Amino acid sequence: MATSDSTRQGHQKKNERRSAQATAVLRMAGTVRQLLSETGHIPPASRALVELMCLPVTALWCRVLRFDPQAPTWPDRDRFLVPSASMLPLLDIMLSLTGSSGPYKTPQNTHTEIAPGPASYGIAAAAGMALGEQTLASRFGRSLINHRTWAVVQDTDLASGAATEVAQLAGQSGLDRLTLLVASLSDSPSPELITSLALFQASGWNIRKITAGDLSSVTSALAAALRSRKPTLIVCSPSPARKSSDEQNSLPPAELTGPWSLTARRGASARRSWLRRLVRHRQRSTFQREQMEQLPPLLSEDWLRTWRWHMRRSHDRSTKNASLVAFHTLAGLLPEIMCLSSSALPLPSDILTDHTLSPPENSTVICGSKAEGMSGLMIGLALHGGLLACCQAPLIAADRMMTALRMVAFMRRKVLLLLTENKLNQDCLSGGLLSAEQLPALRAIPHLAVFRPANVHETFQCWEAALRWKDGPCVLSLTPDENPDTPFPKSCFGSPSRGGYLLQHQHAPQVTLIASGSEVAIALEASHHLAKQEIRTAVVSLPCWKLFADQPETYRQKVLGGSGIRVGIEAASGFGWEQWLSPGGVFVDMNALNISAQTGTSYDRSGSIAEAVCEVVKHHLFASGMMRDSLPQAGLPSVDKNAESHSGKVIKQEWKTQQWQSK
Amino acid sequence: MATSDSTRQGHQKKNERRSAQATAVLRMAGTVRQLLSETGHIPPASRALVELMCLPVTALWCRVLRFDPQAPTWPDRDRFLVPSASMLPLLDIMLSLTGSSGPYKTPQNTHTEIAPGPASYGIAAAAGMALGEQTLASRFGRSLINHRTWAVVQDTDLASGAATEVAQLAGQSGLDRLTLLVASLSDSPSPELITSLALFQASGWNIRKITAGDLSSVTSALAAALRSRKPTLIVCSPSPARKSSDEQNSLPPAELTGPWSLTARRGASARRSWLRRLVRHRQRSTFQREQMEQLPPLLSEDWLRTWRWHMRRSHDRSTKNASLVAFHTLAGLLPEIMCLSSSALPLPSDILTDHTLSPPENSTVICGSKAEGMSGLMIGLALHGGLLACCQAPLIAADRMMTALRMVAFMRRKVLLLLTENKLNQDCLSGGLLSAEQLPALRAIPHLAVFRPANVHETFQCWEAALRWKDGPCVLSLTPDENPDTPFPKSCFGSPSRGGYLLQHQHAPQVTLIASGSEVAIALEASHHLAKQEIRTAVVSLPCWKLFADQPETYRQKVLGGSGIRVGIEAASGFGWEQWLSPGGVFVDMNALNISAQTGTSYDRSGSIAEAVCEVVKHHLFASGMMRDSLPQAGLPSVDKNAESHSGKVIKQEWKTQQWQSK
Repeated sequence: MATSDSTRQGHQKKNERRSAQATAVLRMAGTVRQLLSETGHIPPASRALVELMCLPVTALWCRVLRFDPQAPTWPDRDRFLVPSASMLPLLDIMLSLTGSSGPYKTPQNTHTEIAPGPASYGIAAAAGMALGEQTLASRFGRSLINHRTWAVVQDTDLASGAATEVAQLAGQSGLDRLTLLVASLSDSPSPELITSLALFQASGWNIRKITAGDLSSVTSALAAALRSRKPTLIVCSPSPARKSSDEQNSLPPAELTGPWSLTARRGASARRSWLRRLVRHRQRSTFQREQMEQLPPLLSEDWLRTWRWHMRRSHDRSTKNASLVAFHTLAGLLPEIMCLSSSALPLPSDILTDHTLSPPENSTVICGSKAEGMSGLMIGLALHGGLLACCQAPLIAADRMMTALRMVAFMRRKVLLLLTENKLNQDCLSGGLLSAEQLPALRAIPHLAVFRPANVHETFQCWEAALRWKDGPCVLSLTPDENPDTPFPKSCFGSPSRGGYLLQHQHAPQVTLIASGSEVAIALEASHHLAKQEIRTAVVSLPCWKLFADQPETYRQKVLGGSGIRVGIEAASGFGWEQWLSPGGVFVDMNALNISAQTGTSYDRSGSIAEAVCEVVKHHLFASGMMRDSLPQAGLPSVDKNAESHSGKVIKQEWKTQQWQSK
Repeated sequence: MATSDSTRQGHQKKNERRSAQATAVLRMAGTVRQLLSETGHIPPASRALVELMCLPVTALWCRVLRFDPQAPTWPDRDRFLVPSASMLPLLDIMLSLTGSSGPYKTPQNTHTEIAPGPASYGIAAAAGMALGEQTLASRFGRSLINHRTWAVVQDTDLASGAATEVAQLAGQSGLDRLTLLVASLSDSPSPELITSLALFQASGWNIRKITAGDLSSVTSALAAALRSRKPTLIVCSPSPARKSSDEQNSLPPAELTGPWSLTARRGASARRSWLRRLVRHRQRSTFQREQMEQLPPLLSEDWLRTWRWHMRRSHDRSTKNASLVAFHTLAGLLPEIMCLSSSALPLPSDILTDHTLSPPENSTVICGSKAEGMSGLMIGLALHGGLLACCQAPLIAADRMMTALRMVAFMRRKVLLLLTENKLNQDCLSGGLLSAEQLPALRAIPHLAVFRPANVHETFQCWEAALRWKDGPCVLSLTPDENPDTPFPKSCFGSPSRGGYLLQHQHAPQVTLIASGSEVAIALEASHHLAKQEIRTAVVSLPCWKLFADQPETYRQKVLGGSGIRVGIEAASGFGWEQWLSPGGVFVDMNALNISAQTGTSYDRSGSIAEAVCEVVKHHLFASGMMRDSLPQAGLPSVDKNAESHSGKVIKQEWKTQQWQSK
């Protein structure tokens, strides 16, 4: 009897406590609703959304969310994402009520984990953060890393490609600490929503449908999310009678310090014990270094040594291979590297035997053809902190990663993106799109540095420069094309780490050949041809435009040279090249570079291509009257007069259509 | 008894015929396999694929596919797509066996419906073609349009975002004449494939799994696809024992004219009867005009008249509104217009009342947030012929449509893309990405013309120029920002239809302000301010770079002006602007344009912004020694010295980060 009494009393106590918490939450929700009604300039559409999500979000913040208003940048805080601008007012009110200050736009207020953008990318970023949490937890244990990721989105956001791809990736790597709160305004689920839910379910997500107005169902859904072994999707639809919790007479915020301070106290104490654990943790220094995004001392020396040591064994001299070795050696030195890849990163066979160089299996996620989802995860990894995200994909997929790159660049986060170009002959013979054509689009993104190294030596220097680039993300565009056996000459002036340098120089050059990547070898070959015909040339390699543009005017002038015609050579569209070509300069693109490809023979970067470049150069020297030579023989690519622009002739990219129309 | 006898005989006959056809197909498959084994340079991975799909594709071509080798461009042919380069050898053999000549790379051989690219876009393009077929059939009836679309893809292609988005769109509009043959090499379906199939099923597709080696199941699957009321997906997996049909001793092609000529005869007779129906068809002339992609005579006159007539009633002077009216009036005149839109195209309220202007409901597909899938459908519509695809989306989504745009531009097909910019103040206040930043990436695509009209008048002229642009797709970038009430001055020299023109000109200008879109109004305002301070200015509007670059040098010189500083003004990254700025030119971007946004006040294009521009201009005039004025007062955007390039200073896009870091 006594026992049963005590149990009964226990139950009563529990019920009372629960009801007390419930009332607290409902009162909060009432206040939030009141504050919302007071805030002006919310468009009606988003107002409905915000009011729908009012109770679930309040319940989350009151009861579940792990955060400390005093320490907004606490590494082990729960991440709460509001990706779409329409729901930001709700977040704003939550922040003001928890005593966190600052408009949500600025990162000073780091409760705001992400800048508003396409909402589907918010979902992707949330998954990325959960992935980061998972990886760090496996390294440092749950004593240091033990938080969750929450995102508030709208049902229409689930249908877009980025979301569907990320849904599959999240299911694949079992991100059980990721929860999406989905606002669905329509009382009955739309066919689109049904489809999306089917996909999420099939990809291994928990789906729960709740009435946003009913506190008990909200609480149980949140509890289920905490228990779940899968990523969770909570669909919040409006209750048939919307009045559910409007009866709660809302009280002035002054009185609401009670429940909130409760929440805040919970967070603060959690953080204090976390700090105690951190002090005792044996990997503390590493953890702190990574959190502060500092590189270990003497990194570059060790890196360069190991890289050299491995490269001496490799016979494949392509920049792709050199960069692969650079990545693997770096991954050995930097445990914070997290790699997303469209395919497994193979080591060249002649190095594979070496077991000191183990690819970071544990921290590599293979994303297959889901380039957009991968780029979304990249955002999350970049924002989570304590990780250095490396992404590997074919350059042709860059278009699908552009939005994510823009967002990362806009938020000035650091990401390394390794893009592999197709072999040029492959491009030409398949008759499809040119991979290198994405380069201008990438270069146009502010704060994003694009590196296109020309040989093994440059590759490492570009890697290092990319690692030191503080302004935002970096892209390394690499080619599997083998370098010719003839090694490059030593740099006459400058170095690749300054973005551009003088590779070869004759006194008072009549022509300056400017190229990047595979095309530098062509430029060197062409300069030899021209030298035979007593035309003085200089050859400039331009691996990174942004770095080069940051150099002082004098340096740039000295590299590019004052006199003589400037000839740009790149297997891409000439857009943007005018800034390096003086008036009267020329841009030579696939039109000339693919003569051999058009004739069906495979693309070799010596021989025919270089000769074609020489013809173009001689043609323009003659036209500009700098050469009193006989007219160059026929067979050179015609200069499209229409493409003349006042700052340099640009030969339009005609080769494809020529090939296209040819029998 | 007699009856039963006759029926029995009938059955026998049928069985004999069926078996005869079966043997024919199997013999063909044998030959194809033999030819495949003879063709060299097929990478092993794709060889397995090709051999797997050998029998299904042969059966399709022998028994089902509707084509006439003599008339490869027959409008009512079945479309057969092989989007990925890896399976092209199979198509190649099919073509050679059907007596169609030419390598598959060139469009001379129009059996090849699409250039090789990302395979998921091949799926999307196939759906687009089926959509085109559906639309045209509803206009001209099944007597003229009665074909199907088939595509051969790999299971991994189904997972990518473009494919998932298109799967939903295809299901949504019930494209029952679309069939995908999916090659799945693994004997047991991978979890990824299972997920994709779940999505396709949920989006309303028929799924059939067959053994590629078993002819009967192949035939029944094809028959089911012909009967189906939904889009069909046929998953072809290898038979446990691969030897299924290798027993067929393969015969030399010489002997195989039998079955092929049968197929060819079937196609030829089908086409002959189609031609007879065409002659009798009452919409014959329209059909032929649209097929030849000719515009009706006097189109522009009628179009301009109706457009003017509607515009006089509209009070909203934004280019977005003007372009909406232009689109609706055009849709009234050109029935071949097919519209894909991310949202319903609303007419401005003051015109809506007018019932002569009905939006083309029947030929509009709402794609919601599925921008990538929409762009994929666009490819298909562009390739199908007889349709003019118009696509409408927010400019911020342009990134996700880039791949499709590249492909359409590469294949030189015509598409109209209407992209709506955000209101600038909206961009700034939401603190998110800038929509206008996509412009350089779009301008960098060869053969793609980007139009950015500045006012109502320019909008129509740009529309017309876009309609006449033969080189490839067109993009119109429009803004909902209202134009200021002060109307633009008449053009002093040139016209918008030439890509750029002189809007305002004072004798021997010291400064030429070059702008596009909303920024032209700022330039005009600034020129007024400068005029007050006795600085002579010219204002140039540059709605389309490609058109302007195609103008003769003399025209461009006269518009841009020889003397004086050139100042580019655009709310985007300055990448590529150097080609219009003479050495010493300046580019003014958001840094200056968003001073008001930073201070929180909403973006107005007169006042503060224009004054900021003036300050920049005066600063540079002074620096260049062309103005003996007092130093301009403080508060002007600082010129980032690092951003100097030898062909013009470019003020780097700093404002966002300023805003981002500001409290």
